[in-house]
Amino acid sequence: MRQLTEESLTHAVLAATDTSVDPRTRDVANALIRHLHAFVREIEPSEAEWLKGIEFLTRTGHTCDANRQEFILLSDTLGVSMLVDAINHRRPGNVTESTVLGPFHVHGAPALPMGANLAEGVDGGSPAFVEGRVLDGNGKPIAGARLDVWQVRPDRLYDVQDPEQPSMQLRAVFHTAADGRYRFRTVMPVSYAIPDDGPVGEMLRALGRHPWRPAHIHFIVSAPGHAPVVTHVFVEDDPYLDSDAVFGVKDSLVVAFEERPPGMAPDGAPMETHFHVAHHDFSLSAR
Amino acid sequence: MRQLTEESLTHAVLAATDTSVDPRTRDVANALIRHLHAFVREIEPSEAEWLKGIEFLTRTGHTCDANRQEFILLSDTLGVSMLVDAINHRRPGNVTESTVLGPFHVHGAPALPMGANLAEGVDGGSPAFVEGRVLDGNGKPIAGARLDVWQVRPDRLYDVQDPEQPSMQLRAVFHTAADGRYRFRTVMPVSYAIPDDGPVGEMLRALGRHPWRPAHIHFIVSAPGHAPVVTHVFVEDDPYLDSDAVFGVKDSLVVAFEERPPGMAPDGAPMETHFHVAHHDFSLSAR
Repeated sequence: MRQLTEESLTHAVLAATDTSVDPRTRDVANALIRHLHAFVREIEPSEAEWLKGIEFLTRTGHTCDANRQEFILLSDTLGVSMLVDAINHRRPGNVTESTVLGPFHVHGAPALPMGANLAEGVDGGSPAFVEGRVLDGNGKPIAGARLDVWQVRPDRLYDVQDPEQPSMQLRAVFHTAADGRYRFRTVMPVSYAIPDDGPVGEMLRALGRHPWRPAHIHFIVSAPGHAPVVTHVFVEDDPYLDSDAVFGVKDSLVVAFEERPPGMAPDGAPMETHFHVAHHDFSLSAR
Repeated sequence: MRQLTEESLTHAVLAATDTSVDPRTRDVANALIRHLHAFVREIEPSEAEWLKGIEFLTRTGHTCDANRQEFILLSDTLGVSMLVDAINHRRPGNVTESTVLGPFHVHGAPALPMGANLAEGVDGGSPAFVEGRVLDGNGKPIAGARLDVWQVRPDRLYDVQDPEQPSMQLRAVFHTAADGRYRFRTVMPVSYAIPDDGPVGEMLRALGRHPWRPAHIHFIVSAPGHAPVVTHVFVEDDPYLDSDAVFGVKDSLVVAFEERPPGMAPDGAPMETHFHVAHHDFSLSAR
């Protein structure tokens, strides 16, 4: 392993992995080495270009903190997150399709009672009522299914992007009733730009791409004995449905948020403004 | 660009790059997307594995600071730095071969007079005298060539790895005399482990690889009208010459450090201990 050349280098690096290591680790590392070297052989970077790449990755790492995950954003915007998602969910049948988790999920959202207002204390936005059922693969309701729900604020920021505001805004966990039903009040989801003041935004601009995501509500739906699903409910007619910055839109996840005039809300409350009503069922596969 | 599948995703991500952007940027980005997706398609990572990858990159970024460049170390240990080097130095003829820059170069090393002691104030180590010439491609001496020299300390750390010690230890810039000659005193270079208390060390352990580099002195040799060379002088007979953790050894860069008994040093000084003498000429190509 000396006097390595453009021709012999890749083989030497692969051969350096010890044969006794965990086979999956070896397979992943050696695939990484092969594909990374193939990339370099194709683009033939100058030394200055390679250093720019190193600096890009370094800034991406430095942009990550407790409230921001720039590498997930990079994976999302390069379509890799949706590819990993597709590979891991080759499920046939009538199970709810999955999409990106994204970088804004937070553990420990408060459990709220059925029908509660997810947007309590949130400024602005048009009221929306979301309801539906969690079903198994045979269309039977699942009681006690867990819905972890999070959503961007009407000002197009997640709570974690705004240290001035209380945490856990527009975040809650709901559990289905015996009939598999869930329902909650919220504000209309809005389209928003992913954080584009860091390296990922710089990359998007260099590629002539916009940073917008179509309006959606995030869900992780889970139930004992079933495979959980990480998914969204997208708002029908959003202008960004066909150019999502993270390639996450599935037709089956696009839902009408029907506008209704002032009057009685689905939960019986009198509404003095227009409001929206959406219905969406989730289906989980048995494990 | 909706309802993307495992089959259609890569094409959609490539198509998102605007056709009006800088062609080199587009080529590099699209090659990155293709190779990254090919890697993911080959290994089919679980979502947990992909997240481990995200976390690895994040920790690698967080390990980088003013004195440590973990992404260069990652590039070095995956053989990518030497591949970029090989691609950029397909020079024929009798020009000095290049090798990795590594993560420990510092700008602004002090200019020292010919013959000075690079290791002034450094504890331990056996004295060594290094001399030679800087030549052009026709073997003619180059006057006023610049040699930027840096070396690990006898305790196997670079100065920047030890905040307790003065900076610019074992770092200097020399210039050749009219006859193209350079010479300096130093201490014997020692083999050392690259920093392995971070993500790169973790990776090396997972691959059953050691972190050692064979003993060497770093040089960047440059002169007006010539292409600079980033290179090393390796010490002959080092046990790690055939398993350099960063794949950087070239036979033409391995030099004998001849041991001499106490007596007169090459610079005329009386030596009371054993010392070493090495000779190495550098050759630069005209630009």
